[in-house]
Amino acid sequence: MSKGKLTIAGREFNSRLMVGTGKYASNEQMVAALEASGAEIITVAVRRVNLAEMGKGCMLDYIDPKKYTLLPNTAACFTADDAIRTCRLAREAGLSDMVKLEVLGDEKTLFPDNEELLKAAKVLVAEGFTVLPYCSDDVILCKKLEQLGCAAVMPLAAPIGSGLGIRNPYNLKIIMEAVKVPVIVDAGVGTASDAALAMELGCDGILMNTAIAGAKDPIAMATAMKLGVEAGRLAYEAGRIPKKLYATASSPLTDLIGS
Amino acid sequence: MSKGKLTIAGREFNSRLMVGTGKYASNEQMVAALEASGAEIITVAVRRVNLAEMGKGCMLDYIDPKKYTLLPNTAACFTADDAIRTCRLAREAGLSDMVKLEVLGDEKTLFPDNEELLKAAKVLVAEGFTVLPYCSDDVILCKKLEQLGCAAVMPLAAPIGSGLGIRNPYNLKIIMEAVKVPVIVDAGVGTASDAALAMELGCDGILMNTAIAGAKDPIAMATAMKLGVEAGRLAYEAGRIPKKLYATASSPLTDLIGS
Amino acid sequence: MSKGKLTIAGREFNSRLMVGTGKYASNEQMVAALEASGAEIITVAVRRVNLAEMGKGCMLDYIDPKKYTLLPNTAACFTADDAIRTCRLAREAGLSDMVKLEVLGDEKTLFPDNEELLKAAKVLVAEGFTVLPYCSDDVILCKKLEQLGCAAVMPLAAPIGSGLGIRNPYNLKIIMEAVKVPVIVDAGVGTASDAALAMELGCDGILMNTAIAGAKDPIAMATAMKLGVEAGRLAYEAGRIPKKLYATASSPLTDLIGS
Amino acid sequence: MSKGKLTIAGREFNSRLMVGTGKYASNEQMVAALEASGAEIITVAVRRVNLAEMGKGCMLDYIDPKKYTLLPNTAACFTADDAIRTCRLAREAGLSDMVKLEVLGDEKTLFPDNEELLKAAKVLVAEGFTVLPYCSDDVILCKKLEQLGCAAVMPLAAPIGSGLGIRNPYNLKIIMEAVKVPVIVDAGVGTASDAALAMELGCDGILMNTAIAGAKDPIAMATAMKLGVEAGRLAYEAGRIPKKLYATASSPLTDLIGS
Repeated sequence: MSKGKLTIAGREFNSRLMVGTGKYASNEQMVAALEASGAEIITVAVRRVNLAEMGKGCMLDYIDPKKYTLLPNTAACFTADDAIRTCRLAREAGLSDMVKLEVLGDEKTLFPDNEELLKAAKVLVAEGFTVLPYCSDDVILCKKLEQLGCAAVMPLAAPIGSGLGIRNPYNLKIIMEAVKVPVIVDAGVGTASDAALAMELGCDGILMNTAIAGAKDPIAMATAMKLGVEAGRLAYEAGRIPKKLYATASSPLTDLIGS
Repeated sequence: MSKGKLTIAGREFNSRLMVGTGKYASNEQMVAALEASGAEIITVAVRRVNLAEMGKGCMLDYIDPKKYTLLPNTAACFTADDAIRTCRLAREAGLSDMVKLEVLGDEKTLFPDNEELLKAAKVLVAEGFTVLPYCSDDVILCKKLEQLGCAAVMPLAAPIGSGLGIRNPYNLKIIMEAVKVPVIVDAGVGTASDAALAMELGCDGILMNTAIAGAKDPIAMATAMKLGVEAGRLAYEAGRIPKKLYATASSPLTDLIGS
Repeated sequence: MSKGKLTIAGREFNSRLMVGTGKYASNEQMVAALEASGAEIITVAVRRVNLAEMGKGCMLDYIDPKKYTLLPNTAACFTADDAIRTCRLAREAGLSDMVKLEVLGDEKTLFPDNEELLKAAKVLVAEGFTVLPYCSDDVILCKKLEQLGCAAVMPLAAPIGSGLGIRNPYNLKIIMEAVKVPVIVDAGVGTASDAALAMELGCDGILMNTAIAGAKDPIAMATAMKLGVEAGRLAYEAGRIPKKLYATASSPLTDLIGS
Repeated sequence: MSKGKLTIAGREFNSRLMVGTGKYASNEQMVAALEASGAEIITVAVRRVNLAEMGKGCMLDYIDPKKYTLLPNTAACFTADDAIRTCRLAREAGLSDMVKLEVLGDEKTLFPDNEELLKAAKVLVAEGFTVLPYCSDDVILCKKLEQLGCAAVMPLAAPIGSGLGIRNPYNLKIIMEAVKVPVIVDAGVGTASDAALAMELGCDGILMNTAIAGAKDPIAMATAMKLGVEAGRLAYEAGRIPKKLYATASSPLTDLIGS
């Protein structure tokens, strides 16, 4: 519905919402939620699928490869080496050359280890992968990831699974000023208004999993997120009214958030 | 799309978004924006239409009465008497018995004069009007308006035309706890995420005008608002994940906003 | 320490912090907290003191009238009549002509009943009282209270005892633009940064009770609040740096809060 | 005034406020502001002083070494090598073994280059420096810096010189949970309530420069900051009241900010 399409590494996508596959009550529920979300890119934790079971009823078999672009991710990898190995495995299994690169810093907060991330990104780009790195909302890091050849940057909005929403829109704004690759918010959103706000800030896309899979009604929430992303993007393109203390105030307020 | 319908004074509506008719570049643009918004209730400032011109190409003739519920409002009234007279005029002209009651306190901020509002509401309810009052986000006032027989309360999110969004979600929560009539946020939203947030808080509906009519592309923004309201309502019904400092934290955060 | 003094009805005060006397563990603790707060104006709920016991060891006897300006208040009054009667009682008992006028809307939220407040203020001003009304953060109401002859307006920051802090700084800003009498934030602050923020917004003073009396260590919190108020006022007078996305950004952000 | 002292690398300090020396109109103004701030630790950009001029009327000669602990910093260093060299220079000039380590990522935003920071910290700790690193508010990074042997971590509240205040209190909370060394907020505060809030969150100290030197009246602002830090620390130690929707609400709100 929105005019501008999301372009990652030369490929165009109509939906700006990407979703994960973890934490669903059943594969059937997952399929229905994916469908409801309107997502075209579906991310899968390589370490959580049994690649040997592909084609024999494993979770991956529920995801129609003609309909969706599969995005293998390196969830549960805590070193560059682990993450690199996992990406190679995904490629060998024929999953994809485009990977969501995660190198986690600890099991408790699931924040990225950005130092290891840089190492892994360097190797993987050199090996021809299209790398989409999950990272902190740190402009210097994002510029480095872009310079290394990553196809996008995926700063977190808040800790994975926290549902806290966009904790630091200022950092996202600064990142968007500084890099040319798509900025895709990854992790931390909790509800539809969070998704809309991310898009209104000008982010190119958003990736989420827990917010949908962990909702009381995941399928309804998947629809809500789809609508929230579309609403936010359209509002961004439509050009909102300025903020003012009251309508007749002469000078607009410019606090960035949603402006 | 959402399960629960909005019921006002016994009448059911599918859309929870109500929109105004002011400030459009042309009547054609207005019609297109109304259509895009999906709104079923359209509010019109009685003082700004020439009732004598009805049927001869005035603005009102652009709004299909079979498609929309017309909600006359008393914009530009600064006393109870003015507002009462304006409602009677609307009724005599055959517009509607359901009115959006505004009694403004000044021309600069457009905040309501709640003292005059109470006087006007009392008289109008007694005269058989279905009264929807635009008011401050003040729980005591809202309880009084309900006790007087108003069919809903319409607390402001922020000053009319300010685009500041939901300035005090805590007050809205307290009002929703205290009254049984629908709580419809009126005035102050600026963009789609504001609309989604209002619905996620549990508000029953939302009314806006400037945020749509004043956007660079009003028709795109009308669509964005329609989607934002649907997204927020669906997210509210879907039951969002709790907020936590990080996913493995044992205790959820409860800060109300969007929770 | 700050240059400008607080002037109410022609009387000058060095401290911009006013405190209440309720909810302390003992009168001794109260005295120590009053002392630590540096407050010069102490408010007392007329309905909670036994005026007949004055001079015989009641709470009031703990407050040195040479040191403090006693400000009787009408806490626990729910109608204009109740509040008026209570003020007359305070005057007859020789307490003061300057009163903090509260007319509460309900026992649950302790929000003001602004309609009754206006009635009571009108009568009390006519009877020669110096009236300081606790009210909603509503600019139209504050202008009416000023026009009635109130010596200040005391909008709430958040519900009494909630500790939520300044919920709507925008409303306070609008009120400060509109009235000439002192704007004293009354109710809702929870901690020292809330007090500092109120002063940075330009408020003339702040009144609190629960935030001090309800702290684990009320005397330490009283000192914290004294310092917070002084810090905020000084910062306001010192002229803070503009907010910017980063230091070299050409345009400042103007979001009002603390600016 | 507050009970707990700040301990860094075994040294105790009464003041939790550290200040810089840049951007003052004159050395005299700087001296007066340092005095007003009550700071005991004063940070100086090694690259901006002419070490050869020491003792001949340079800026450093204005800072009494008996009164203040001088903290050389590596401002304007953009690589680990630069920063290391600068620290060695400071040591050779007899300035101090305790250094504030900055490795900036770019001249525009002044965000840290955390990758280079880790490299520099490792070398400097090995060379016997007491290293206080300016870093992102990133828990994984802070844990690494602690493991490398840094004596504190100094996460930014917002970009240097931005005056935006504590942009992400959640991240600071997570860092405080994760590390045992002092957490000192460095950069980004704009006014006294920001300083108070940082202390209320439980941070051990705060370092600032622009917020004081850039204020219209730097000396008044230095006093405001001193009071704000004391107010916030005392409030933290005093144990604030819980946040509630209103005083009689049964469950407290826990949104972290200032709680």
